[in-house]
Amino acid sequence: PVDRTKILAAPGVFGNFSTYKVRPDYYKLSAAERKGAADEVMAVVDKHKDKVIVDAYLTRGFKAQSDYFLRVHAYDMAATQAFLIDFRATRFGMYSDVTENLVGMTKPLNYISKDKSPELNAGLSSATYMGDAPRYAFMIPVKKNAEWWNLSDAQRLKEMETHTIPTLGNLVNVKRKLYHSTGLDDTDFITYFETADLGAFNNLLLALAKVPENKYHVRWGNPTVMGTIQTFENVVKTLSMGH
Amino acid sequence: PVDRTKILAAPGVFGNFSTYKVRPDYYKLSAAERKGAADEVMAVVDKHKDKVIVDAYLTRGFKAQSDYFLRVHAYDMAATQAFLIDFRATRFGMYSDVTENLVGMTKPLNYISKDKSPELNAGLSSATYMGDAPRYAFMIPVKKNAEWWNLSDAQRLKEMETHTIPTLGNLVNVKRKLYHSTGLDDTDFITYFETADLGAFNNLLLALAKVPENKYHVRWGNPTVMGTIQTFENVVKTLSMGH
Amino acid sequence: PVDRTKILAAPGVFGNFSTYKVRPDYYKLSAAERKGAADEVMAVVDKHKDKVIVDAYLTRGFKAQSDYFLRVHAYDMAATQAFLIDFRATRFGMYSDVTENLVGMTKPLNYISKDKSPELNAGLSSATYMGDAPRYAFMIPVKKNAEWWNLSDAQRLKEMETHTIPTLGNLVNVKRKLYHSTGLDDTDFITYFETADLGAFNNLLLALAKVPENKYHVRWGNPTVMGTIQTFENVVKTLSMGH
Amino acid sequence: PVDRTKILAAPGVFGNFSTYKVRPDYYKLSAAERKGAADEVMAVVDKHKDKVIVDAYLTRGFKAQSDYFLRVHAYDMAATQAFLIDFRATRFGMYSDVTENLVGMTKPLNYISKDKSPELNAGLSSATYMGDAPRYAFMIPVKKNAEWWNLSDAQRLKEMETHTIPTLGNLVNVKRKLYHSTGLDDTDFITYFETADLGAFNNLLLALAKVPENKYHVRWGNPTVMGTIQTFENVVKTLSMGH
Amino acid sequence: PVDRTKILAAPGVFGNFSTYKVRPDYYKLSAAERKGAADEVMAVVDKHKDKVIVDAYLTRGFKAQSDYFLRVHAYDMAATQAFLIDFRATRFGMYSDVTENLVGMTKPLNYISKDKSPELNAGLSSATYMGDAPRYAFMIPVKKNAEWWNLSDAQRLKEMETHTIPTLGNLVNVKRKLYHSTGLDDTDFITYFETADLGAFNNLLLALAKVPENKYHVRWGNPTVMGTIQTFENVVKTLSMGH
Ligand code: HEM
Ligand code: HEM
Ligand code: HEM
Ligand code: HEM
Ligand code: HEM
Repeated sequence: PVDRTKILAAPGVFGNFSTYKVRPDYYKLSAAERKGAADEVMAVVDKHKDKVIVDAYLTRGFKAQSDYFLRVHAYDMAATQAFLIDFRATRFGMYSDVTENLVGMTKPLNYISKDKSPELNAGLSSATYMGDAPRYAFMIPVKKNAEWWNLSDAQRLKEMETHTIPTLGNLVNVKRKLYHSTGLDDTDFITYFETADLGAFNNLLLALAKVPENKYHVRWGNPTVMGTIQTFENVVKTLSMGH
Repeated sequence: PVDRTKILAAPGVFGNFSTYKVRPDYYKLSAAERKGAADEVMAVVDKHKDKVIVDAYLTRGFKAQSDYFLRVHAYDMAATQAFLIDFRATRFGMYSDVTENLVGMTKPLNYISKDKSPELNAGLSSATYMGDAPRYAFMIPVKKNAEWWNLSDAQRLKEMETHTIPTLGNLVNVKRKLYHSTGLDDTDFITYFETADLGAFNNLLLALAKVPENKYHVRWGNPTVMGTIQTFENVVKTLSMGH
Repeated sequence: PVDRTKILAAPGVFGNFSTYKVRPDYYKLSAAERKGAADEVMAVVDKHKDKVIVDAYLTRGFKAQSDYFLRVHAYDMAATQAFLIDFRATRFGMYSDVTENLVGMTKPLNYISKDKSPELNAGLSSATYMGDAPRYAFMIPVKKNAEWWNLSDAQRLKEMETHTIPTLGNLVNVKRKLYHSTGLDDTDFITYFETADLGAFNNLLLALAKVPENKYHVRWGNPTVMGTIQTFENVVKTLSMGH
Repeated sequence: PVDRTKILAAPGVFGNFSTYKVRPDYYKLSAAERKGAADEVMAVVDKHKDKVIVDAYLTRGFKAQSDYFLRVHAYDMAATQAFLIDFRATRFGMYSDVTENLVGMTKPLNYISKDKSPELNAGLSSATYMGDAPRYAFMIPVKKNAEWWNLSDAQRLKEMETHTIPTLGNLVNVKRKLYHSTGLDDTDFITYFETADLGAFNNLLLALAKVPENKYHVRWGNPTVMGTIQTFENVVKTLSMGH
Repeated sequence: PVDRTKILAAPGVFGNFSTYKVRPDYYKLSAAERKGAADEVMAVVDKHKDKVIVDAYLTRGFKAQSDYFLRVHAYDMAATQAFLIDFRATRFGMYSDVTENLVGMTKPLNYISKDKSPELNAGLSSATYMGDAPRYAFMIPVKKNAEWWNLSDAQRLKEMETHTIPTLGNLVNVKRKLYHSTGLDDTDFITYFETADLGAFNNLLLALAKVPENKYHVRWGNPTVMGTIQTFENVVKTLSMGH
């Protein structure tokens, strides 16, 4: 199977986020039919384990446009597609409508690297998450306007330093991961976070609202997807309940 | 059970607003099946009473995109999710489509505190609601642009004082509650109000349309959700009527 | 029953506009079932006649997002809700999807009053409709931006005089009514008109497009709803036709 | 029956454009049931022939939001409604969802008249279509902003002359018709074209993109509807095919 | 049959892009019924082979709003319509909902021609694709604002040279094709790409985000459609899987 720690740290990895609503007619299936749903899904996860890793999150109760979302990683974008196609052919997958789908890839640092911003890079690299085991995850797409992209490299570096200075401190209570999507999808970035401390997360985003970089955003959320971190098995079981 | 007065006054409490449309096929169920719907919902409310409180509002006749909405409070966001998942598994919940879902949290005063604006804070703290028992409730999401967030603390304080001066007088006929959502959802704030005097409420919003703070709004409503304040039981019964 | 002439002239009256599409499955009911639809609706109108008056308009053939709309007046917003809930529980109502719903209230003149603009107020009060019996009705929501609301009272009065001067002449062939909605819904105003002369109405709106006030509009229509003026009974019968 | 040539040339005529998608369940009807669909529709056209003329266009394969559209003319807007209501009650009409509906009216020239712009008016009046029989039709809604409408008559005349100069030459290969909609619908104009030469049409629109008038557009298409020109009978037959 | 190489290189050719979602009820058909779906589709492709060529792409797993898309070329736009109408009448086509449909045509170079920009034209003409066989395809609609179109020919040429200089190098790993749509649809251009190297594609789009031309975009994607390049037969078979 894919080495989870490695694939979550490497550049050039493809990340795929998809949000789903379970269709009401799923609950017209008999309890017996829904009972086997989780095992069937886990069998598909197992079938693809040499190519992809999958994380699942429960969003029902938080989001109108979804009940759950998946975050899939692979070294090959087509391998992710093969997995999702098999997933959509399971009973649970067939009764799920996909409501949002965003793809991106990981890349080396563009700004806060050892070369370009050594002090901040040191802070970035040395930070350690010290909060409780994260219970909540967020996916927030971000897109910047043509004004931003037409700034010089030096100007953009300055703004990203201004992004990093007030947020480094949050690395103790918020885990973060960045994906690059320009051209691959209708967003420039997909940002992903995990935390146990929603108040800290709210304050983190307020800090980033207050920096000049924010003036260049044409998409910052929409949707902001929040879910509880669950096993995929548990997501399927929870959403397969009912009369 | 959760202490209602306490949870409605404390900071760090999670508020969750969800609006629902009842699906037309609900009315294809027999009257007998729909008759037990309210009891089943109240049993779920009771099951979760140590963790959440629930308020319900009837919006049918006022809103195209909903028939009712719920306002749920908990000290733990995941407890709210657990309640809403059980609610969605009841008969009435299974026949409801969620059309909007916004989450936020209560926080201490950012601007009109004893430190920063003592006179207005005194007016705020001493005001008493003196109108008739409120019959209408409103949920209005609010989001401000990057220009607002990049103003200095002093500039933003000034604008919030300008927000408060003409509105303090309305505290006699409008109850208000503020939730903070930046990063948790696609809004910065969720505002909630109760009143018996719709003319006073219209005048209140006109007063707030006329202050400079309004120039920074990128979301002010959309949706503006108005409902009548009802028991959850009554909401379910009313919407379970039909042939 | 409610005095129609009085309620249509008084301030502080609640107006409620709702647009509906008839669902395709309505026409799968037998002709016999659809035959009784109008009587059932009129019985509900009669049940609520001491609290509300209802006007109906046929929009099929003019609007994609509706087949008919209703305009309901009451001195109490909750009475309107009670009526609409009973209407939605009739056969015809159960097979109607509400596509837009806007609420507002009537108020005394803000600008062209005897005090503030006596000449124009005289023109306003003395005008008489002299056209043929109106056959068409329009509902046009209007919302103005923060720039408008931050103008001084004097500046806004000037613009509303500029609104009134070129339009007074249309009072001979267009009937008008204004509702105020700020805070109650996602519009500032709901405007309503009746006419027999669509060319005159087009010219009226062109005149209002050409005044500076128009530069402040962030919503002017969307939807612009046009319907033919019908009895509610006839609307139900017309839309209950089919195989 | 209505004189087609006359009604297509007169001012004060009401034009009504509606686009439709055929619902998937239409194809669940037996072939026999679908076989009579065209005759039933043509019977309705015949029933209303003294009041309306109807043109039909096939858009399936070109547009996601429609399979066909209709263009109906009448001297009385309510006569158009009566026709469309009867059409919607036919089998084919009952299985069609209307996705867009725009109404407008023809008027005398506002700008390029003999009085205001005699040279260009001469070019306009003398031009003759000389292309192959048109095969394609376009409906393009157009709306201009408050800046445009607040220009003086002289300024707007200048811009419309700039609109006409580079486009007169296209009258040899593009037929055009203009409808006025301000206040009647959520567009200022509905423009309609027929051509056999799509390359010429593309160049025509590029010429109009390049004039200053284009800076005032807030709607220019959305949707741009292109269809092939067909008999109504053929449209119904083509879309009634299937297993 | 149509000469594929010729039609993909000629000007004046009509390109038609349509994206589809397979309806959930397709999977309620028996496996036997779905088994013959691919053959039926290929028979339609064969029937139209003298007029159109068809390319298919699998998007499920990448896009929320589609499962596959088609790219059809013909010398006559109506021939494309005839093909798509027959396709939509197959079993697989009948169970597909079209979610986006854009049409355009190929034209000679407007800017980087031998006359206007000889050096860059030389680079353009001499470039050869040298990457692995492409596996991914992209369709990205592009629309520019009135400011762009009102620039002089010389100004636009300058910006297009700035577009070409940093991107010529990508012709080794990205194949490109440009379609012109102004007036034919709600976009100015449809751009199409094939690649095996998604990182290179992301960098290519970043390069184009950073040029002044980007400031004139009012549509750049929305949707950005990415799919894997497949035979049409394989697309149908893959999407016909299930219980
Ligand atoms: C936990 C605290 C955070 C820290 C320490 C942090 C730090 C950074 C750093 C160092 C970079 C530059 C990466 C590079 O050099 O390529 C970056 C980029 C980025 N961050 Fe954050 N970030 C944090 C939270 C957030 C949040 C909450 C968001 C918004 C949802 C966000 C959105 C982004 C985006 C979109 C980029 C890419 C920007 C670009 O390349 O133009 N970050 N962040
Ligand atoms: C009943 C009369 C009202 C009074 C007395 C009032 C007073 C206040 C006060 C004192 C604050 C500052 C809280 C702090 O220091 O953190 C505040 C914030 C706020 N109020 Fe009001 N308010 C009223 C009505 C409204 C209404 C009708 C709305 C709009 C729907 C509204 C929207 C907001 C928002 C969004 C905030 C947060 C703004 C920010 O932190 O940037 N308020 N209000
Ligand atoms: C039939 C000719 C019309 C006349 C004589 C007329 C006159 C007036 C007058 C006198 C007022 C001020 C009321 C006050 O003092 O509070 C007013 C307000 C208003 N009118 Fe008109 N009007 C006409 C047509 C229209 C039309 C066609 C529309 C647009 C759809 C329209 C939209 C409005 C709106 C939105 C207001 C409230 C504006 C505000 O308070 O900021 N009117 N009209
Ligand atoms: C076939 C070549 C065309 C010619 C010769 C032409 C000519 C004209 C003329 C003379 C007028 C002024 C009518 C009047 O005086 O009231 C006019 C108005 C108009 N044309 Fe064109 N036109 C052409 C193509 C188009 C196209 C392709 C469009 C855009 C889709 C278009 C959109 C309009 C609109 C919206 C108006 C009304 C503008 C206003 O009154 O503000 N025209 N055209
Ligand atoms: C593979 C590298 C690329 C090269 C070498 C390239 C080159 C060119 C050239 C030479 C033209 C001018 C054609 C003419 O003279 O008419 C052009 C036009 C265009 N390109 Fe690219 N391009 C590339 C990638 C892209 C990408 C990735 C996009 C965006 C999605 C794009 C969008 C466009 C558009 C929309 C036009 C037409 C612009 C107009 O006529 O105003 N190109 N490209």
